[in-house]
Amino acid sequence: MNNFEEKTIHTEKIYQGRIIDVEVDNVTLPNGETSKRELVRHPGAVALIALTNEDKIVMVEQYRKALGKSIIEIPAGKLEEGESPKITAARELEEETGYRAQSLDYVVSYYTSPGFADEIIYIYKAEGLEVVSEDQLQMDEDEFVELKEVSIKEALRLIEEERIHDAKTIHAIYYLMYQSLKGE
Amino acid sequence: MNNFEEKTIHTEKIYQGRIIDVEVDNVTLPNGETSKRELVRHPGAVALIALTNEDKIVMVEQYRKALGKSIIEIPAGKLEEGESPKITAARELEEETGYRAQSLDYVVSYYTSPGFADEIIYIYKAEGLEVVSEDQLQMDEDEFVELKEVSIKEALRLIEEERIHDAKTIHAIYYLMYQSLKGE
Repeated sequence: MNNFEEKTIHTEKIYQGRIIDVEVDNVTLPNGETSKRELVRHPGAVALIALTNEDKIVMVEQYRKALGKSIIEIPAGKLEEGESPKITAARELEEETGYRAQSLDYVVSYYTSPGFADEIIYIYKAEGLEVVSEDQLQMDEDEFVELKEVSIKEALRLIEEERIHDAKTIHAIYYLMYQSLKGE
Repeated sequence: MNNFEEKTIHTEKIYQGRIIDVEVDNVTLPNGETSKRELVRHPGAVALIALTNEDKIVMVEQYRKALGKSIIEIPAGKLEEGESPKITAARELEEETGYRAQSLDYVVSYYTSPGFADEIIYIYKAEGLEVVSEDQLQMDEDEFVELKEVSIKEALRLIEEERIHDAKTIHAIYYLMYQSLKGE
């Protein structure tokens, strides 16, 4: 492993928000020079690759202000302080989709934007889905989502159309296509 | 498509940096209530799934201040104003790895963190690699990277060890595994 560590000389707090904090770190580089790093702090999140008994992928469509458009994504939600990722995953699945899973297995975790953010997503695979609630989904008060269940074939078309257009959802689809060819 | 559009009432500029800008938008929700959206603006990026003639994946290890650790990633770089993603991809490949590609094909694009950021990554597949430069890589003055060439088997071990730990690189590996099983 290389030793390119950058030591923090000074941290300037720029913004403390509801979801993200922003800071600028002055750092010492490996060559002794200094530079600035613009950093976004995020609590982390979970996302679910949830398959119905008909092998459809459970997704939600929602408006994303950062993009200025609605996209269709796998269910996801922020980690709450003191809550384990698996508990968050079970809670988010139920709140966003009305499903409860008989099995909920950890797949992988990854950083979404390591160049500027520490957001990490823990991915779980949910199977054996049972409908818990057909009522209005219990979301945060400023969240509006529409449930979708799509086949892999439909998902590939939605990627072409850029209605599926985010990293975690595209990764989930390739993961499922790989597992399906591999015969698992 | 649903109509959950959120209209901007007011934009508060929080920070304008070298790589990211941060703003908080006051918005009208579909139910008529108002809320705040914390948004990070980013110029976008390209990343390369680059395969050597020995079917190794070209990667770079670098320290990521946001994560406080070094990780191994596929080559990537920010879009420059007025530069097309394909030109950026060819330039970044040469600058970060010393390789030039005979073929450079668009694969997919995705938003990395649609909940708070507009960063989009355009993924290209690079094949027919030729060494252009064995000299010191021409990087930005505050970038320090170490070239690695890893097989898919090694890449899976590096994911287990969390030395590969970011969305674009994990997506690239699943993409290659899928293509390889599919026989393309």
